[in-house]
Formats: sequence, structure tokens, C-alpha cells
Amino acid sequence: MNNLIIEKKFFPSSNSEKQIYETLFHVANGYIGTRGSLEESPIHPGTYINGVYEEIDLEHAEPLFGLPKKKDSIVNIGNLQGLNIYINKIKVDFSKCHVLNFYQYLDMEKGVLSRNTTYKDINNNEITINTDRLASFTHPNLIHFSYSININNDKELCVESFTTNKVSNYVKKDDPRANHKVLAPIIPQSSTNTTLTSEINNSKIKILVKVHYITNHNKNIVHDENTITCTIKNKSSIYFEKNVLISDSIRKLNIDSKEIYFDDYKLKTEQENYLKKFWDISKITIGNDDQLEKGLNYNLFQLEQSRSIDCYGHLGAKGLSGEGYEGHYFWDTEMYCQPFFTLTNPQISKTLLKFRYNQMNQARDNAKRMGHKKGVLFPWRTISGKECSGFFPAGTAQYHINCAIAYAIIMYYRVTDDKEFMLNYGMQMLLEICRLFIDLGNFYEDRFEIHEVTGPDEYTCLVSNNYYTNVSVKYDLDNLLQISNSLNFKIDEDELIIFKNAADKMYLPKSEKLKICLQDDSFIEKPIWDLKNTDEKEFPLLLNHHPLELYRYQVCKQPDVVLANTLYPNYQTKEYIENSYEYYKKITTHDSSLSPTVFSIAASRLNKNNEALNFFGNSALLDLENLKKNTEDGIHTANMGGCYLAIIFGFAGLKIKNNILSINPILPKNWTNYSFNLFFQGSRINFIIKKGNGEIISNQDIEIEVNDKITTIKGCSENEY
Amino acid sequence: MNNLIIEKKFFPSSNSEKQIYETLFHVANGYIGTRGSLEESPIHPGTYINGVYEEIDLEHAEPLFGLPKKKDSIVNIGNLQGLNIYINKIKVDFSKCHVLNFYQYLDMEKGVLSRNTTYKDINNNEITINTDRLASFTHPNLIHFSYSININNDKELCVESFTTNKVSNYVKKDDPRANHKVLAPIIPQSSTNTTLTSEINNSKIKILVKVHYITNHNKNIVHDENTITCTIKNKSSIYFEKNVLISDSIRKLNIDSKEIYFDDYKLKTEQENYLKKFWDISKITIGNDDQLEKGLNYNLFQLEQSRSIDCYGHLGAKGLSGEGYEGHYFWDTEMYCQPFFTLTNPQISKTLLKFRYNQMNQARDNAKRMGHKKGVLFPWRTISGKECSGFFPAGTAQYHINCAIAYAIIMYYRVTDDKEFMLNYGMQMLLEICRLFIDLGNFYEDRFEIHEVTGPDEYTCLVSNNYYTNVSVKYDLDNLLQISNSLNFKIDEDELIIFKNAADKMYLPKSEKLKICLQDDSFIEKPIWDLKNTDEKEFPLLLNHHPLELYRYQVCKQPDVVLANTLYPNYQTKEYIENSYEYYKKITTHDSSLSPTVFSIAASRLNKNNEALNFFGNSALLDLENLKKNTEDGIHTANMGGCYLAIIFGFAGLKIKNNILSINPILPKNWTNYSFNLFFQGSRINFIIKKGNGEIISNQDIEIEVNDKITTIKGCSENEY
Repeated sequence: MNNLIIEKKFFPSSNSEKQIYETLFHVANGYIGTRGSLEESPIHPGTYINGVYEEIDLEHAEPLFGLPKKKDSIVNIGNLQGLNIYINKIKVDFSKCHVLNFYQYLDMEKGVLSRNTTYKDINNNEITINTDRLASFTHPNLIHFSYSININNDKELCVESFTTNKVSNYVKKDDPRANHKVLAPIIPQSSTNTTLTSEINNSKIKILVKVHYITNHNKNIVHDENTITCTIKNKSSIYFEKNVLISDSIRKLNIDSKEIYFDDYKLKTEQENYLKKFWDISKITIGNDDQLEKGLNYNLFQLEQSRSIDCYGHLGAKGLSGEGYEGHYFWDTEMYCQPFFTLTNPQISKTLLKFRYNQMNQARDNAKRMGHKKGVLFPWRTISGKECSGFFPAGTAQYHINCAIAYAIIMYYRVTDDKEFMLNYGMQMLLEICRLFIDLGNFYEDRFEIHEVTGPDEYTCLVSNNYYTNVSVKYDLDNLLQISNSLNFKIDEDELIIFKNAADKMYLPKSEKLKICLQDDSFIEKPIWDLKNTDEKEFPLLLNHHPLELYRYQVCKQPDVVLANTLYPNYQTKEYIENSYEYYKKITTHDSSLSPTVFSIAASRLNKNNEALNFFGNSALLDLENLKKNTEDGIHTANMGGCYLAIIFGFAGLKIKNNILSINPILPKNWTNYSFNLFFQGSRINFIIKKGNGEIISNQDIEIEVNDKITTIKGCSENEY
Repeated sequence: MNNLIIEKKFFPSSNSEKQIYETLFHVANGYIGTRGSLEESPIHPGTYINGVYEEIDLEHAEPLFGLPKKKDSIVNIGNLQGLNIYINKIKVDFSKCHVLNFYQYLDMEKGVLSRNTTYKDINNNEITINTDRLASFTHPNLIHFSYSININNDKELCVESFTTNKVSNYVKKDDPRANHKVLAPIIPQSSTNTTLTSEINNSKIKILVKVHYITNHNKNIVHDENTITCTIKNKSSIYFEKNVLISDSIRKLNIDSKEIYFDDYKLKTEQENYLKKFWDISKITIGNDDQLEKGLNYNLFQLEQSRSIDCYGHLGAKGLSGEGYEGHYFWDTEMYCQPFFTLTNPQISKTLLKFRYNQMNQARDNAKRMGHKKGVLFPWRTISGKECSGFFPAGTAQYHINCAIAYAIIMYYRVTDDKEFMLNYGMQMLLEICRLFIDLGNFYEDRFEIHEVTGPDEYTCLVSNNYYTNVSVKYDLDNLLQISNSLNFKIDEDELIIFKNAADKMYLPKSEKLKICLQDDSFIEKPIWDLKNTDEKEFPLLLNHHPLELYRYQVCKQPDVVLANTLYPNYQTKEYIENSYEYYKKITTHDSSLSPTVFSIAASRLNKNNEALNFFGNSALLDLENLKKNTEDGIHTANMGGCYLAIIFGFAGLKIKNNILSINPILPKNWTNYSFNLFFQGSRINFIIKKGNGEIISNQDIEIEVNDKITTIKGCSENEY
């Protein structure tokens, strides 16, 4: 059995299920993505470019000083998948067809989405449509389709394939998480030969789409601009390939005309070769749980499809699979997704960090807008670099976005030892982030405090001394001091003293009585939400309760403190970490998809093997099984990254200490073994965890802390531990 | 000199100054108001009906559960003041005229606005326009105008007077305090004879406007629907009167046809008689400060113009003078304006309270929306009774609106002893208000705490244990218990125990070290805003700083704690009251017009005579001198009421104890004396404060606590104290 194939054997039973398929089977390469629509009966066959946005008005019910007046929104740049079928010149109405056969599958080793569908229409014609498609990893501007279509009789079959930029974004009502507005359709500027040029109304970004068809039916073809029409008779098949090349004016509005002629064979071969290298380092195997293994690797494949290939794009909360969250980039990328790249393909991590670096000026402007005299404040949600939050208490006030970026920089450096990056980019970002926090916080009675921020748990906003934020800032300051010292990166002496003082005096609220960390200064004084007597229909609470009601209670969307103790365990004793885990477990709704994997990691670290597995639960299948009921809006990339973290940092207990890797693995019940690979400071290391002794294989000698003991791994030999 | 005349001798120098005149000289009678525009060159001659609103969409930048989707907005129902002048059939362009003479004055004894203006046009014609107008207090549906117009030569003078409902609301950009949107113009439904009927687009409220002209120039008149056109020659004057009768479908869409024929003499006589009674009880005299006396009495006159005459309207933040704050009713009414009525004309207070009573069902729905299982939560801003806040942290979260209403009920009862009102209305409201607070708060470590509310000081939002709110709720609970007991009003025993327990255990945050009351749990830990080094242009801070920046600092728009100690002095020691006053004084910007009078009262109570006078400063002239630079949007009714409080509760030191009135007067420097009247439990009392012994005159025997000593005042004789 091949665990790198995701398949659906049943035709989607409703429009809503069609939309889920469209998300699950989107193909993307980090630059472009197109949804996995059924060409002949699509719901929303959107196509997106990483980093390309429209600027739309952000109207506030009560305008206050400094609120953003515009926001970015990802743009559906076109429908590349147009397909009409005619039998004896009458258009087939697929809504009235009977489905005789359906099989759609994504082969993640090949990087190809395939589909075989046979319909019977109202005139008893049997129409078979076989298609393949791929978003080329080796030619990022290129999306490739192949079609083989026939009918079971000798009537005239005519197939029309087309591409159009007369499209609009998807509109969904009433769910605040999918707050898209219609974008004005992109105005077609010119339409010559096989090229569509569009300009996005306000952002003025230009899009170039060029289409080329390859077919062996030359004599029966009408080839007109972006449309091909093939006509045949007598049961023979129509076969053609379609290459769509896309570029945009943020990068270079240019298309490599060679690429447009690449054929199916060449593109599929290159795609498979690319993915061979990807899986070689990325694949996770789980002994005795195929479904989990499949889900996990699907998630890693999606991260690869979503991450930008250049510094003009990043990694959206929904990747390139849909328009949920308006295509914005959040802290999710750095905190949940980026560790996967840092450990398996650090070049990608570097690209993602440079994207943030390039937006430092906007982050400085954002800091000024918020009244800061120094430093940078990265926007809570953005594409272009400008803050796009519509509700600042659960948006801009989440200053911990800065900490997420700092965390990604520090992990990148610890894993790669890339001093050049640090000296040219990383340290400047880290320094400016720390400056912001010094300006944000203040000393009070010999403590450094931070007021009026919102932690990751959006069920409490605008609090004083959010544990998560405070401990994150302490970590950033400590690392700034340590790394700047070791790299000889010059920081003004006066500033150093303030940084050190703030780090040393950082206030980390806790309850001596309960021996737990406190989410913030007032959290513990509030009544506890009665989760046991809350009807299932009430969840997620944010869709059924006014924010102010949620704020009044001890109830978490996701566990601030537990996440903090997972990321920064050295700042707390095991007793407080364990008690906090138990305390917050009882009051967390997991209304955020980021929540369960965090608990899973925490449970693993506390050797609560069963709980770790229970929390991990179906996280790996969250999108594949549409567990959050909103996969139609796009995949949940943060959860996908979170699953990786749960394996590596949770079950395997990986920690990246300053100069050494440490693991402390547990083997969940029912798993016979699991394994994964990573790079650490130049070594390529394969971990195999199994009953009894595990194995660590490295391509060169390296010391690793295994179960708290330093162990020397000899290069290229199997090392039991 | 008559201190009841407000006059302007200079023609407004700009459109902006014209708009200020339009506000200052609006005429209103609590039911309708029309702005004091110059008929021949108006800027925004708006007319408003108390309680009449349009429902407009409230679009949120980020929709969250439970946010209001519509808001009320006051409606400009028409221009009653249309006037065109033609000389030899050519329309006079007043923008090109030279003003030879201008005198506009509001006679508050007569309740008439008068204006004499002489222009010279580009053809050297001298045109004189003399007008009077009044909004009749005795015939609330009626606005009356009289016009006398002539030119200085024998050319043909033609005057056209008209009324129209083809109008829209005023639009002003960039100031969040004047966040009006354009209302769709009211659709004229029919237009027969001299009656205009309109329907407001969404609220479907109907408006009837009927116009009648009285003139002695019958032969030269064309009388066409709502327009009169008079033409004369040879220097004679055109004189006519215009009666506009207005009604609406919230009340009764009906016009008393008798009233339309009332003439100038009858209306002015009745108006003066009405105001004679008003001034008899309301007038405040200040010895040796005419300007202040004039300002104070102007303010009281405006309160009388603004308060509703029935339970379908209330008293807006801008009265009926403009569209600022969209005509909404806030806590201002109960807390700042209503004491004036309670003490001088308690019938009006009762009407205002019944308005709130009638909106109890909406307040119950509002409580449910906010997640409460019991009680009522009055909306922070409303016309119709529905919450219209666009930004809940500085809107709905101000739960103290409930306390303001409770305070007004309690004061009304203490002053009037109106048991019938209490048993039929007041106690139910008080009970439901207290129920809400029990549901809102929670016990924590033997304290009753209230989380996630916003106090009156909007420069800090969503806090725990706001001193103002907590102490207000304690007052409400204590009074509920005491009054229900004395009136034998039945409350469930279980509930009584909870009320008592919450009152007794109410947490009132304070600093033992500084010996001050703390605005909230985290306030003291924040850094202090550097007011000394803040440029004058930065004020008001809310127009130049992001709310989150303001929230991070100890800086007040208005003084929460100081106000609380003024209203509820019995819950704090003098030491804490005085220290708090000093502490918050240093960090208050007075960016709210409600702020200085509160400090003035507090200073008087602390016998800081000079400070009390300094804080009182120009408050009485805030609108007359446009000190807040936004009088064009409407008058500041809360400040007007606040000035009254500063005299009565501040300088005179009036306190309403359970069954007795107490005064503790000071005489500000330079005042030779001051005096005022009030009703207390059936007695009409006149207080004269002067150097040496003051005087108290009562119409019947009464005991009053004077300078902490119980004094018996003999009825109808002068009583020195």
C-alpha cells in the first residue's frame, strides 16, 4: 500500500462536499495554486498567486484614530479549468448526469492529481473524462493539465477548454473567519492571442496568463485565443494537454516561452524527481498506523505546496488552497509551519525570514502607528506588510507575532549555524523586535511588565502580563544578548543594560497557591466557564457568544500557558509545567485548530503517553476528514505544521538546545515504530524510534543528547541508543 | 442688564462660524428642534424630532458574534427655513453681499430667537431682513417664524418662503465623534396642499409637516403648496408669519388644525408665561459675574429645550441642536442632566425614567445578547432602545450605564418621595439592574469582583474591578435593599441574600501605599503618560493616538475615581478621597467635556475653593465660546448639566441624604453671592449663599443639614444660617 496517495472513490454528494474536494485536491507549488475543481461542474475554481493581493476598504463601525483603512485580500486571478462538452452540438448538462464511475486521487510521490469520471447523460450517452494536473515544482510559473475524453457511441463529441480572468472572489456569509468581500472582477486589459493580461483594481498588480495546448488531433481543432475546441466522431478519444504559465508584476511580468511547450512526460518526470528529494528528507513513517502516516505526510506535502519560493510571498493560513482568512499571513507560519522547513530544508526557512525582513519598514511604520518610539511591530495579519486587522483587540494587540518571528530566527540559527544570515538579516530583526518590547513594557516595583496585549488565546483580550507574551519576550531578549555576544554583533552598551535588566526582571505571573503559571494578571479571578454543561452546538464558542462574554470567563480557545511552557520550558519548573497543563486542560475548548497538537506536545513532554496520543487524535486528518467543518475555505496550514511538531517535538521529545540536539522519545501505544529525518548543523540525521532501542543514523559524527545523556553518533553507521 | 439674553453682534466670519451659530441659536421645545440658520444663506438648517430615527447598517471591519448590525441615527426631517429674495426678478446672491448690520439674539425670558440683518448687494440695493422664531413650549408640535423684509428703493421685491423634505443628514469627515453617514433622503410620499408627508426609509417612521402662512399682503401673494411668494414695490415691507406643525407616527400622526392658525402675539405671550414659571424655579444668580450667570442660565435653558416632553424621546448628548453622536442618548442624561430636572421639575425626570422603563424589554434582550441569564443591560447608546455601539470596548462594555439609570431612579425617589412611581416602575428597574450585576460579577476569595467592563474613562477599556463601576453597583445594591425594605417591595429571600452578600463583599480596589482608590486592578502598574511634554496639538489624545497606546498608560480622559467619590462619598474616607483627587488630577487630560466640572465638584467638597473655581473655569461657556471646537455638531448637554451640578453639588455642597437635604456651601472668590431654588419632598426651597450668613427660604417648615448641623427652616420666612 502506498501511503503517499490520497484518494476519493465517491463522487461528492453535495456542492459543499465539492468545495471540500476543491480544497483538498488543490495543486500548488508555493507560487501558484489552483483549486481541485471538477472542470465540468466546478463550484469555485479559484487560482491564487502567493503575495498577490487586492487592497480593499476596511470600513469601521466606529472609526478610531490609527485603525487601518485598507486591507489586503488574496485575489482569484482566473479560472484555468474551463471545460464544456457537447454531444451532437448539444451542451452536456452535468447537473443532470448520472455518475457511473468516479475516482480522484492525489499521488504525492508524483505530485500529480488524477481523476477518472464516467457520466451517463439524459440521452444515455456515457462520457468518460480522465484528467491529470500538476503545479510544477521545477517550473513554478507553470500549471499543467492533460485531458482524455471520450463517449461510448459514434455521435459527434466536441470538447471546449478555456481560460478566463472574468472571475470574482468567493463570497460566504455569516462566518467571521471567512470574511471575504467580493473583489471587483479583474479588468481584462488586453486579450491577444493566447495571453491574458489583467490588472487588479486598487493594488495595480498586473497578472499575465499564457495558455498553450498540445494535441494530436490537429485537423479537428479550432484554436481561438484561450479556448481550444476539438471535435471528433466514432468513439475515438480526444486527448490534449494544456500548459498555463502565470506571472505577476510584483516579481517579473515575464514568461519563459520555452516552458510553455514542455510536454506531459517531461513535466511529470521532473515533478517526480523533485518530490523524490522532498520525501527523502521529509517523509515520516509510522509503524502500524497507515491512516495517520498518510495524513501526516499529506500535511507535509501541503506545507511544501504552500510555502513561497521567493521573498515576495510567505505561507498563508490557508496556503494557496482557498480564500479563507483572505489569504493573510499570521504568526502561524513562524510558530507552527516553519520548524518543519528549518529542520528539513532550511533554505525555505531563510526565504520566509527574508520576506519578513523585507517588510521591516512597514513594521517600523506599524510600530509608530501604535505609538512606539522604537522598534518594529510586525502586523498581525497581512500580505503586503501593512496591518490588516479589522478588530485590534484580537488583532494588532497580539504583539506576540513579533515573538513568533524572533523564535523562527533563533531556531533557524540554532539549527543551521548560518552566521552570515544572522549578521546580515537576523540580528537586525531580533534587535528591532527587542527594542519594540522595551518600548512596550515598563518597570513596576522591580518587575518588567507588559500591559494591554492579547496572547494567542483570543478568548481573553487586552490583558496585563500575559504569561505567553512575557516569557516569549524574555526568551527573545536572552537570545539577543547571547547571540549578539557570540557573533560580536555590536549593540550600544546602554541598550544592552536595559535589555538585560528587562530580561532579568521579566514578570512571569504565577499562582503560588495553585502552583501554576497564570495566563495573565486577572485570569484566575474570573469564574470558570461551565464547559461540561455547554451544549455541543455552542462550539466554537466564538460563533455563538459575544466576545465580551468570553472575556469574562476562564475559558481558552487555545492554551496560552501550555504553549509557552512547550516552547520555553527552561523558564519554568516541572511542577509548574505539569500543574499548568492540568489546569488549562480543563478550561480549553480547542476552538482553535492549533490547540490539540499543543496539548499533545505538552503531554508527551510530561510522559503522559496516552493523553499525548488522545490529544493528537485526528489532528493529522483535520482537513482530510473536514473535522473543523470549514475545509471548503482552505486547508489549515498551522494545524498541518502542528502535527509535525507533535511528532518531532512531542513524541520524539526533540529540543534544540544552544549547540546540541536533544531527544527524549516516547512510543505511543499501538505504534510499532516511527521515523523521521532532519538536518542539524550540517549533519543529516535519521531517527528511528521503536520498542526497545531506537536508532539514530547520521551522515557524520555528531553528539546528541538522548534521554538526557550525551551520546556520540558515529557518521554513516547505525547507532542504537 | 438682562442676563437672559444671548447675543451676537457680528455676522459669522466663515461657514464654520455660521455652523456654530446654527447650533447655539437652535430653537427647540423637547419635541422638535430646528437649527438657527440664517434663512437666506444656511449651512445646514436641520430639523429634528426627539426619538425619531433612521435605522442604518452598522458594518464591522471584522464581524464578531453578537455585534449590532444596525444602528439608530437621528434624522434631519426637513428644512423649514427656506427663503429666497428677488429684486426685479433677479435672485439675490447673499454670498456676494456686504453686511451692513447684524444683530442676532436669543431672549431666554421670551423664548424667542430674533435677528436683524441688513445687506448691500452688488447692485447697491440695501436689503433688511428681520426675523423672529420660536419652538413653542405650550404647543410642542409648533415652530413659529415671523419675517419682516424690505429694500431701500422702489424696485420690485419678491420674497419666497418654502419648506422641503428633500434634505439629507450632515456629513463630516474624519472626526470619530461625528460619525454620521448620509441618510438616504426621505421619500416624499404625497404632497397635497400645505402638508408634506414623509416616510423614513428603513425605520418606516412617518413624518407629517403642515405649513400655514399668515400675512397682510393677500393681494400680492402666490400661495402654492409649501411655498409662499410675496411681491411688493415702493419700499414697503413684506411681513408674514409662518407656522410649521410637525408630528410623527411614533406618537400620533396628527396635527391640531386649530394650532396652525395661532398668531405671533398669542404664541409669544404663552411662550413668555411658560418661561416665567421655568425661570422662577430654575434661574441661578451669581453676584458679580454676569458672564458666568448668563452662561449658566443659557445651559439650563438648553436642557429645557432638549428634554423630551413624553416617553417616546429622551435627552440626547446634543439635544435637538445637531447630529453629533447621531442623536444618541447616553448615560450623560441620567448622570449629568437629570439632577437639574429632579430638583426643579421632577415631572420631567419621571418622564425620562419612564422612557427607560419602556425600553426594558430591549434592555433584557441586550443582556441576553451579552450572555447574561438575568437582568437588564441598558444600551450604551441608542434612540430606539437597541444597542448602537460600533466599538464595544468603549461602548457596550460601559455597563455603568445601568448604574446611571439606577442613580437617577434613587435620586428621584429621595427628592420626591414618589412611592407610587417606585412601586410601579422604579423598583422593577432597580431590581433588574441589580440582577444583571449579580450575573456579571463573581465572588473570588471572599470579594465580589466585576471583570471586563469599561468605566467612564474611555482611555482604559475592558478592565477588572473598575472602581467607579464597583462602587456604583454597591450603591445600587445597598439602595435596592434599603428601599425595597422600606416600601415593602417583595424580593425573593434567596436573591436578597445574594444582593446583600455582593454589596458587603464588593471589592473596591485601592493602594494602601499611596492611600488612593485605584481606577482598576492594573491601572497603577502602568507608566504615567508624560502630559507635560505632550504638545497642545495632540489633544484630545483620542484624535491623535491609537486607543491601544492610550490604554497602556495612566492617563484619563475623565476622572473615573474622582467622579465615583463625588457621587458616592460615603464609601470612602476623606483621606482617600483627597489623595485620589490629587493623584488623578495630575493624569487627567479633560479630553471629555464632562471632566472639569467633576473636578470642580470634588475640589469644592474638599474646600479647595480656588481650584474649584479654576476647574469650573469656562465650563459654563463651553458652547457659547466653542471651547471644544465642535459646537457646530451640537451643544454639549452633559457639560451643561455638569455646570449645574458644579454649582449645586459643588460650591453649595448639596447632598441628598436618605431623608434630609444637606448643604455645605463655599463662596468662590469674587462672587458676592449666588442663589438657586429647588424642590425637596414637597418643599420649595431657595438658597442664597453670600459672605457671612446665607439665607434659606422655604415655603414650608423643613429640616436641613447646614454645615453638618441639623437646622430647622420655618416656612415662608427668611432663615439665616
